[in-house]
Amino acid sequence: MAGKKVLIVYAHQEPKSLNGSLKKVAVEELSKQGCTVTVSDLYAMDFEPRATRKDVIGALSNPEFFNYGVEAYEAFKRRCLASDITDEQKKVQEADLVIFQNKLALLSLTTGGTAEMYTKTGVSGDFRYFLWPLQHGALHFCGFKVLAPQISFAPEIASEEERKAMVASWAQRLKTIWEEEPIDCTPPWYFGQ
Amino acid sequence: MAGKKVLIVYAHQEPKSLNGSLKKVAVEELSKQGCTVTVSDLYAMDFEPRATRKDVIGALSNPEFFNYGVEAYEAFKRRCLASDITDEQKKVQEADLVIFQNKLALLSLTTGGTAEMYTKTGVSGDFRYFLWPLQHGALHFCGFKVLAPQISFAPEIASEEERKAMVASWAQRLKTIWEEEPIDCTPPWYFGQ
Repeated sequence: MAGKKVLIVYAHQEPKSLNGSLKKVAVEELSKQGCTVTVSDLYAMDFEPRATRKDVIGALSNPEFFNYGVEAYEAFKRRCLASDITDEQKKVQEADLVIFQNKLALLSLTTGGTAEMYTKTGVSGDFRYFLWPLQHGALHFCGFKVLAPQISFAPEIASEEERKAMVASWAQRLKTIWEEEPIDCTPPWYFGQ
Repeated sequence: MAGKKVLIVYAHQEPKSLNGSLKKVAVEELSKQGCTVTVSDLYAMDFEPRATRKDVIGALSNPEFFNYGVEAYEAFKRRCLASDITDEQKKVQEADLVIFQNKLALLSLTTGGTAEMYTKTGVSGDFRYFLWPLQHGALHFCGFKVLAPQISFAPEIASEEERKAMVASWAQRLKTIWEEEPIDCTPPWYFGQ
């Protein structure tokens, strides 16, 4: 949809991977729609995942007892969070749609195991189980409306043809992504009744 | 139990926190029992959590296409994994009991929310839901027998007396930790029938 801003949070080390292809096709399709697409390529940026004292610039509000949550909140209010954090917060704030694309995160992800393994009776359990902490605990908690995840199962053991179909199905979905209704991000979606 | 080796994987920034007290009391109680206790203090060690090419020493088996899983497995076989990884692997291998203690990990953890919030009908859902990816997907998958988690709910809004009770209950549990049966780490434990 023309004029919309999209942020893709991308976490994979290899551009030639299926993850790389899924990211590429998303940038292409969404740009073609007239969207402004920004990619946060976490590995390429060497993004710091540790939550430490370095996230706060200058003095702490309580240097005697370091409480990350309190210090980060105070630093947020005083605009003293480190720029690697505020840069990303700004991107999220400006975006109309955020696509997290990562082997083990949200919305668009690839798995090691097959679809059969990620069922209620499969060895890994229903795939919705492992989405709970991320989709509900992180995204929903932060106020996002959550769209259905795009899961590309087991690309490493899929044929080249099947991998192409995964990329094509993602590109196809993106064509009408703006018409999708968010999921009802509550326990029944994840665990049934 | 005298002679047993215990590894505590500890991840908190502030030694004076409740997490710090729980770690301290575990070291004391287990040492008193005659165990050899090792602590991996991840923040103090500045442990690198990113899975990158740097984890492999020397040449890659396929430099044209970086697949972390493949490269890590090959490097493991050739004994070419970086020492920060092999040091920790060695500790895990030698341990009879591994206690992961972290705000958001296993066995001994503290939460931000109260016990009421972590129930089936609470805003955060049953606490067992968020344990699934870690306890089942990581620990059980890696062959651990998983003991029941020790959850200290919402220390930040608890009274000093309640926090002391949390530490005491952990110390008490550790006295008979070697007699405990592991949980049945399957979907019914997490999601009911």
